[in-house]
Amino acid sequence: MAGRFKLKAQLYSGDAIAIGPGKADLLGAIDETGSISAAARKLGMSYRRGWLLVDTMNRCWSTPLVETVVGGRKGAALSDLGRQVLADYRALEEQLTEIEKGSAAVRLRKALGATPPT
Amino acid sequence: MAGRFKLKAQLYSGDAIAIGPGKADLLGAIDETGSISAAARKLGMSYRRGWLLVDTMNRCWSTPLVETVVGGRKGAALSDLGRQVLADYRALEEQLTEIEKGSAAVRLRKALGATPPT
Repeated sequence: MAGRFKLKAQLYSGDAIAIGPGKADLLGAIDETGSISAAARKLGMSYRRGWLLVDTMNRCWSTPLVETVVGGRKGAALSDLGRQVLADYRALEEQLTEIEKGSAAVRLRKALGATPPT
Repeated sequence: MAGRFKLKAQLYSGDAIAIGPGKADLLGAIDETGSISAAARKLGMSYRRGWLLVDTMNRCWSTPLVETVVGGRKGAALSDLGRQVLADYRALEEQLTEIEKGSAAVRLRKALGATPPT
């Protein structure tokens, strides 16, 4: 029973992902490091990719989640809304984790075979 | 606020997905149609793909979820475990839907911009 659940929450605005696991991690890393470039490096992505994810996020919400100085290389911080969105998303993730402890999830996991298929 | 949540649960056995949205739909369609080929057709997939998904599923669990006659072309049905797994997975999905109604999810949705980014 090597079973593990993967539970994922994404919020879309049209075709764009406004928040999901990757963007939440990026918000967390920006909050921690104080810049988009350091956050991207921490997550193993290019500065360009980090910047693009921030740009998409900022355009999805009523006000930007990340405030930058000179495009973000010189420094970036979460706005009040950014902090709220990250906290609410982490709360969602905790609710997902709770589901894994429920009877349906436990029964599913127990019904798996002893060894994974090869 | 055209926001919509996408919440997904997958159970892995090793690297294989034992059950997820697509496999659950396939189980449901097999239960409904009584054959893998009709189920695959209903879901817009090839017989080969349907058969491969069933084969993976059957090898993930302690006993097969789908019982077939002559490779499945002549008829297939859910085993007792198959019925249980489908019911438990649908229960999980309902729990995911509940999360969308919670305060964190509602607040997130309200904070989206009025129009999706272009």
